[in-house]
Amino acid sequence: MEEKLMRKLGSGSLDFDAYFSEKAKAMKASEIRELLKLVESGDVISLAGGLPAPETFPVETIRKITAEVLTSHADKALQYGTTKGFTPLRLALAEWMKNRYAIPTSKVDIMIVAGSQQALDLIGRVFINPGDVVVVEGPTYLAALNAFKYYDPRFISIPMDDEGMKVELLEEKLEQLRREGKKVKFVYTVSTFQNPAGVTMSLERRKRLVELADEYDFLIVEDNPYSELRYSGEPIPPIKHFDDQGRVLYLGTFSKILAPGFRLGWITGSPHFIRKIEIAKQAVDLCANTFGQVIAWKYVEEGYLDEHIEEIVEFYRPRRDAMLEALEEYMPEGVRWTRPDGGMFIWVTLPEGIDTKLMAEKAIRKGVAYVPGEAFFAHREVKNTMRLNFTYVPEETIREGVKRLAQVIEDEMKALRG
Amino acid sequence: MEEKLMRKLGSGSLDFDAYFSEKAKAMKASEIRELLKLVESGDVISLAGGLPAPETFPVETIRKITAEVLTSHADKALQYGTTKGFTPLRLALAEWMKNRYAIPTSKVDIMIVAGSQQALDLIGRVFINPGDVVVVEGPTYLAALNAFKYYDPRFISIPMDDEGMKVELLEEKLEQLRREGKKVKFVYTVSTFQNPAGVTMSLERRKRLVELADEYDFLIVEDNPYSELRYSGEPIPPIKHFDDQGRVLYLGTFSKILAPGFRLGWITGSPHFIRKIEIAKQAVDLCANTFGQVIAWKYVEEGYLDEHIEEIVEFYRPRRDAMLEALEEYMPEGVRWTRPDGGMFIWVTLPEGIDTKLMAEKAIRKGVAYVPGEAFFAHREVKNTMRLNFTYVPEETIREGVKRLAQVIEDEMKALRG
Repeated sequence: MEEKLMRKLGSGSLDFDAYFSEKAKAMKASEIRELLKLVESGDVISLAGGLPAPETFPVETIRKITAEVLTSHADKALQYGTTKGFTPLRLALAEWMKNRYAIPTSKVDIMIVAGSQQALDLIGRVFINPGDVVVVEGPTYLAALNAFKYYDPRFISIPMDDEGMKVELLEEKLEQLRREGKKVKFVYTVSTFQNPAGVTMSLERRKRLVELADEYDFLIVEDNPYSELRYSGEPIPPIKHFDDQGRVLYLGTFSKILAPGFRLGWITGSPHFIRKIEIAKQAVDLCANTFGQVIAWKYVEEGYLDEHIEEIVEFYRPRRDAMLEALEEYMPEGVRWTRPDGGMFIWVTLPEGIDTKLMAEKAIRKGVAYVPGEAFFAHREVKNTMRLNFTYVPEETIREGVKRLAQVIEDEMKALRG
Repeated sequence: MEEKLMRKLGSGSLDFDAYFSEKAKAMKASEIRELLKLVESGDVISLAGGLPAPETFPVETIRKITAEVLTSHADKALQYGTTKGFTPLRLALAEWMKNRYAIPTSKVDIMIVAGSQQALDLIGRVFINPGDVVVVEGPTYLAALNAFKYYDPRFISIPMDDEGMKVELLEEKLEQLRREGKKVKFVYTVSTFQNPAGVTMSLERRKRLVELADEYDFLIVEDNPYSELRYSGEPIPPIKHFDDQGRVLYLGTFSKILAPGFRLGWITGSPHFIRKIEIAKQAVDLCANTFGQVIAWKYVEEGYLDEHIEEIVEFYRPRRDAMLEALEEYMPEGVRWTRPDGGMFIWVTLPEGIDTKLMAEKAIRKGVAYVPGEAFFAHREVKNTMRLNFTYVPEETIREGVKRLAQVIEDEMKALRG
């Protein structure tokens, strides 16, 4: 009787966890997203996020295009689309990539995905067998680790310097693996203005990486969301540009050059690879949202994209400069940081012995938030780093944030010495 | 020298297949999508698709809402959103489901997904261990089989009649599994106006299914894209309505009541389940497209949805009637079909011995296309059925299509007898 009553009340008698798959039991929420929830309240200056500034969204252009799309293309824009993506958008992107990066359209195919994040998941699904070796940068993009992890790879993390992944260390590793009779499935790199480190892989290393891929027979996944956000220095061709063999899968996204709210990105690669990724996508969500795709097509096709890139660059450059200047002015001796020519992030390294994860709560209490670096390393091997974002808040706020942070670090260094 | 030249030309020396994961090697393209490619040309009447009629898209409403969103909510609509979905949309949907289906908002949570297809994939990811028993209807929604298949379940297929899944047969199966010491992880059902069969699970069976879920300890995945498209008969509460324990995951979608181009659906279920699905979604695409979500929010919140449902129903009813009448008029003796009160599909059963897959090419040559039924069965156990769609083409075309089809079937029956 009582049992029946309990059931009627639905009073938590179900052991919900018992139904999850083994893999689901191991899934953890993104630490950054959890941290950001804490920050939302109060007078905390957040240098922790990874969001573009809403002021950069081309609202008027979108308004104009959307009206046009609903007048002339509503049937297509509101209907299901093909899994591979809206063909005029795919063609416009191919043309744009040919002009901008000298990537020949004849040897590659393009498919549209629901943001680069989906590209990462689909690449994991299509290429990773449990135990396959996946090489990442140390540090690397956190959400890529999350996406790949589901497929149980063995990560190898290659340290970086101001010229990106230390490709000579990769070579040593490849040689070592070869002796063990093992191979790398793919190398994942955010080649330009890396998230989180802000650094760019040098031209020489790009070429060498492609040579190594041929020599040791692996693929390269080049994730390139930031290269258009260049505030100084000369453009450098993507790794994909040097790819004769079709080993490079190139990921692009509209999140930083139009707006993240459309959730649109693309994969450029050998038709054979794209075909399999397309089949994988069919099972996970049929197609990317068509409405956004038709808007994005007009945006690229009618030249708004190139115009808008210049505006974003002008908007972000002073913010990057403000953060670099503030770091110079306020940071105590012994703290190092990268000096990116573009992108959204600066990477800060504190003296050995400071654990930025433990320090994060103190910083929030002092009114500033950052992302502790640990989670960006595949094996959590480094404790004294942090990622700072300079795109989301205005210059004055950046200065104040860095000032507060410098104070927290100084206190921490004193405590360490004392 | 020659080898180097070959490499420079990138002349297909790479063995692309060798890089795929074992699971990717087994992935196949959807047969329906491949068939539909054939149909695109010429004078073929397609009763094969599953598309809503573009005439039903509420273009003017979308235009009005979109302009409003870009004026008053651009910052949110164009930015990244939370993984769980745009909160005002989630709240508006909860309210709508409470009013429409008497599903209490207090015991459930809602998350937004990139169409129901993504819900199916995420549910596979979060609940299915390899070898887990998943019960489906025979026939069932093809793309659900595709989504779940990646996670290696053991499918059990339960036949249907005019009142949906034969729940008494399910009970026998459950009893048998119990004797073998086995359990079902979940039962998947398209409960109302099923795709592909058009039938609706009766009230009595809905209640019994929930009782069985409690008794034999399994979950229920209720996929309900069609229930608003009711042309006759009385509404029936979703299975979720009878769920005291939190065993039912309910899937809704905007594809049939707004437009598929937004790729938006939702999952309603116990907060504990939703939380895990949210974490899984974080790794696969961060969040559903925010722009569409904000538009969908206004669409629900301001009452456009309920208005529009009435318009769609009036638009589709004559098409359903036209197909039922044409079947009555043209089909030879020995052919049976379902008489749906709603939805988009009618299921046709031919005399034993006819293989509709083999017949499909002949039909296309005679100017009509349908979907062979075989692929809708988990074990491809039935060969003499087909799915017809009545939403996409106008009444006259439906009549002509059914007439052509009847002729093909008659020829086939003659050949079979002769």
